[in-house]
Amino acid sequence: MRLIQSKENPQYKQLVRISQGKKAEGQLFVWLEGIHLSQAWLDAGYEVVLAAFDAERLTQQHELQQLAQRLDERICMSLTPSLMRALSSVEQGQGIGLVVQAPPTIATQAITQSCVYLDRIQDPGNVGTLLRTMAAAGINRAFLSPGCAWAWSQKVLRSAQGAHFAMQVHEQIERAQFIQLAQIPIYATALEHAEPLYRLDLAQPIAWVFGNEGQGVHTELLEQAQQRVFIPQVEQVESLNVAAAAAVCLFEQRRQLHWVRV
Amino acid sequence: MRLIQSKENPQYKQLVRISQGKKAEGQLFVWLEGIHLSQAWLDAGYEVVLAAFDAERLTQQHELQQLAQRLDERICMSLTPSLMRALSSVEQGQGIGLVVQAPPTIATQAITQSCVYLDRIQDPGNVGTLLRTMAAAGINRAFLSPGCAWAWSQKVLRSAQGAHFAMQVHEQIERAQFIQLAQIPIYATALEHAEPLYRLDLAQPIAWVFGNEGQGVHTELLEQAQQRVFIPQVEQVESLNVAAAAAVCLFEQRRQLHWVRV
Repeated sequence: MRLIQSKENPQYKQLVRISQGKKAEGQLFVWLEGIHLSQAWLDAGYEVVLAAFDAERLTQQHELQQLAQRLDERICMSLTPSLMRALSSVEQGQGIGLVVQAPPTIATQAITQSCVYLDRIQDPGNVGTLLRTMAAAGINRAFLSPGCAWAWSQKVLRSAQGAHFAMQVHEQIERAQFIQLAQIPIYATALEHAEPLYRLDLAQPIAWVFGNEGQGVHTELLEQAQQRVFIPQVEQVESLNVAAAAAVCLFEQRRQLHWVRV
Repeated sequence: MRLIQSKENPQYKQLVRISQGKKAEGQLFVWLEGIHLSQAWLDAGYEVVLAAFDAERLTQQHELQQLAQRLDERICMSLTPSLMRALSSVEQGQGIGLVVQAPPTIATQAITQSCVYLDRIQDPGNVGTLLRTMAAAGINRAFLSPGCAWAWSQKVLRSAQGAHFAMQVHEQIERAQFIQLAQIPIYATALEHAEPLYRLDLAQPIAWVFGNEGQGVHTELLEQAQQRVFIPQVEQVESLNVAAAAAVCLFEQRRQLHWVRV
């Protein structure tokens, strides 16, 4: 495995650019950091462009050695600890990062199974937690509107803990496009003119819509939705965080689908 | 209202110290920032030690003027915009901050109504979201173990959106103390040797326990719990974020309490 010791090395400079990558038109490469995400990516059977290891830790840690063995040596490089630290977005890095290509996000297939549309969810932690909750609830497709946090940013990846790899994540999907694709009822969360969650029949495919942290779901989506839903909570208390609200909805659907005696 | 223009002003220096306040033994004062938190604090009927306004915004914004009218003028001060900005923990401050005393956190009363114990939840966003979810679900008492994020830190306050003011938040509560106080069954989330949430009778007072992001609930609590609970999710997918898991549990209890036909 090649050892890189200089921050002037051209390939290292490329790694720095990718690891700092912000969402951009034509952004091709994504930096996946840490043991868990790397394992999950490989377990999902996806390809790796480049792999960077902390040279010192690689000699000491069995988990890193195991990961190295799963990869083609030609795409692996080891870095001095200080160079590796400079690539990390967390204080305590784990000595490994992968450069990968994010899967395509184009959405043309009609929606016939339960899915989620995120309408301008700005906080990366919320987007990540939402994806993680969807994966746990068995949702296979996520649609993100323009204005959502970039799904492949470091913070979203960290919060989602690998959920991306268990589903298709479509980004930059306009509301109109989502509405057009949906061949199943759209259920949008709303505080007004809405039915309580626990009165609804959820044992069917549903296209869920969850909205912006401050403003909620956009009017256009509320008007087009077959059903507006609210979660019955204590009155005169601030509404739920969007990721908590989605967890309640998606798992109530799951309960009705799998846990109600016929 | 006094106008402070110098960062050398002794009272301003005190504000800086409080606004940067980290959890410390004997920490008495808490900095509440923004319009919503300030309103929620006053609505809850609590006292204010000091109030700081952005001098420019105060002349322009009705919401700030309304807040000023609710406060004794002797405890109010206006600051130049740059001094005010230096107190803020967010990029876009809202021109108001209150210095208040956090309510006492001692817990001696026996636990007879549903409550939540947070076992070493480290992430401030998680602690805040958990408190917000509890308030929405009608939980009135939260117990935080040593090792939890400080409930009155800026990040927790921001995520909780005023939930603190609708409940009693007891901090630094040891596991043994919590177990001793609990006169109702303790239900702890666990991945092994646990019953599925949807098979349990939750229409009763429950002392819920949610655990550390990485390690889950401590063995001591799992052993003492009357019931171990898991949320039935898709297999081979990362488990839920702790705040999402708590939302599912607390709202399933709420559903069983209020929405199941007898």
